[in-house]
Amino acid sequence: MNSKQLFANIKNKKSFLCVGLDTDIQKIPKHLLDFEYPVFEFNKNIIDETSAYAVAYKPNLAFYETLGAAGWIALQMTVDYIKKNHPDIFIIADAKRGDIGNTSKMYAKAFLSDLNCDAVTVAPYMGEDSVTPFLSYDGKWVILLALTSNSGSDDFQMVTDSVSQKRIFELVLNKSLVWGNKENMMYVVGATKAEMLKEIRQIVPDHFLLIPGVGAQGGSLEEVAEFGMNSQCGLLVNNSRNIIYADATDKFAKVAGQKAAEMQHDMELLLKKYKII
Amino acid sequence: MNSKQLFANIKNKKSFLCVGLDTDIQKIPKHLLDFEYPVFEFNKNIIDETSAYAVAYKPNLAFYETLGAAGWIALQMTVDYIKKNHPDIFIIADAKRGDIGNTSKMYAKAFLSDLNCDAVTVAPYMGEDSVTPFLSYDGKWVILLALTSNSGSDDFQMVTDSVSQKRIFELVLNKSLVWGNKENMMYVVGATKAEMLKEIRQIVPDHFLLIPGVGAQGGSLEEVAEFGMNSQCGLLVNNSRNIIYADATDKFAKVAGQKAAEMQHDMELLLKKYKII
Repeated sequence: MNSKQLFANIKNKKSFLCVGLDTDIQKIPKHLLDFEYPVFEFNKNIIDETSAYAVAYKPNLAFYETLGAAGWIALQMTVDYIKKNHPDIFIIADAKRGDIGNTSKMYAKAFLSDLNCDAVTVAPYMGEDSVTPFLSYDGKWVILLALTSNSGSDDFQMVTDSVSQKRIFELVLNKSLVWGNKENMMYVVGATKAEMLKEIRQIVPDHFLLIPGVGAQGGSLEEVAEFGMNSQCGLLVNNSRNIIYADATDKFAKVAGQKAAEMQHDMELLLKKYKII
Repeated sequence: MNSKQLFANIKNKKSFLCVGLDTDIQKIPKHLLDFEYPVFEFNKNIIDETSAYAVAYKPNLAFYETLGAAGWIALQMTVDYIKKNHPDIFIIADAKRGDIGNTSKMYAKAFLSDLNCDAVTVAPYMGEDSVTPFLSYDGKWVILLALTSNSGSDDFQMVTDSVSQKRIFELVLNKSLVWGNKENMMYVVGATKAEMLKEIRQIVPDHFLLIPGVGAQGGSLEEVAEFGMNSQCGLLVNNSRNIIYADATDKFAKVAGQKAAEMQHDMELLLKKYKII
């Protein structure tokens, strides 16, 4: 999927919502455990009720890997289900991978080709040759960690380089601008650091940003839009727990749909406020 | 496994060799493709022939994930096979994970509990709360990326903090000393940066170091021992391609065993030279 198609979907659905599929088998309604693939069953129901309001889904790999081979099958079934029923929806493998070149190449194949996701999140610690192998699939994306939403982001991301006087997350943005472009690279910026979006937009005005941390982690959607939106929207705002675990009964999917609709409504107002639609 | 047991194994086998199981289904001998789990079959043969010379095995997750659920099964079979037949051997899931706390907790469960590996490699970019969830399993280890063996390690790891005048990899070492200790944390230091081991040993004199990059990537075993060895050896030197792909015929395992024996021999000389045994 290219950025034009993604923006068309945002305008069509009046939403820049990404629903995080952090599907924890311990937290899903008990009646789903009777199915052979409870995690897929949960996801399928969530997708059916939220897809009208979402432009992206983001399965979090940890929640699938903790189930071993069965988790990987549930993940593949989930991606296939979205691709078949909602081919316009962008799928992000939230995997935070990154390794030496020949290994990153394998991860890229696993997520972008075999599993057929549209994007994969990548950690930049190992530098250029750990990131570029993910950039060799047409129409596929790297979403590089820049400034994350957790407290530990202060430990290294906010350290200032003595030579350039830039912080590490700024160096990640600056250097990676040469590795990829706005058609194959996005950045993770936590909503808990919304005020930093102003500075980040100076460096990457045109790139899409994936924003976690609205909701459960305390970030504000209004601030994210105020400081982060560009003329093509340029934002995918993720919400996981507040949507998928909003209800734990057999009405879980309906309630998730309502929560997604509420977020879509808020997003529509912001898209109008900033004259994107 | 604790550091005392690991050191006992090193003295017993006169080796600090870690064999990297970067098992690429495209590279294994063709006759193995007749088996239901060719990757496991390859690993089993490699393990049978190299276990006398190795104190650790390191499956590289990318090579298993690219096979989907079948890859995860082959990985589980491999770990189970080592645990059953060689319970003294240390198993490292080379996964380079790291995410917000509740996600790192899931990865920790997947690798250290469910899969029952002894250690998992972790990327430090997201800071303290992305690393500490991996430290809550008794006798299990985090192996944190400090200074990696690839060219991209210069991009961020070698950047100098304007406040402390320390480089990022030094900050990773310094800060993480408070998160864990020498009984639950090791560090990745690439053999291609062997001369840096002298500085690194000033910061972490007692911790074990996992050293990739000897062999295919050009690092020198002698320099690694000269600059990195401590009184408990303190090193696990990994070799993947030079051992497991030394031969592509039906003699692949025997030849891998010979290559592992050669490395063990070199390591025995170094352990004697530095009076560890």
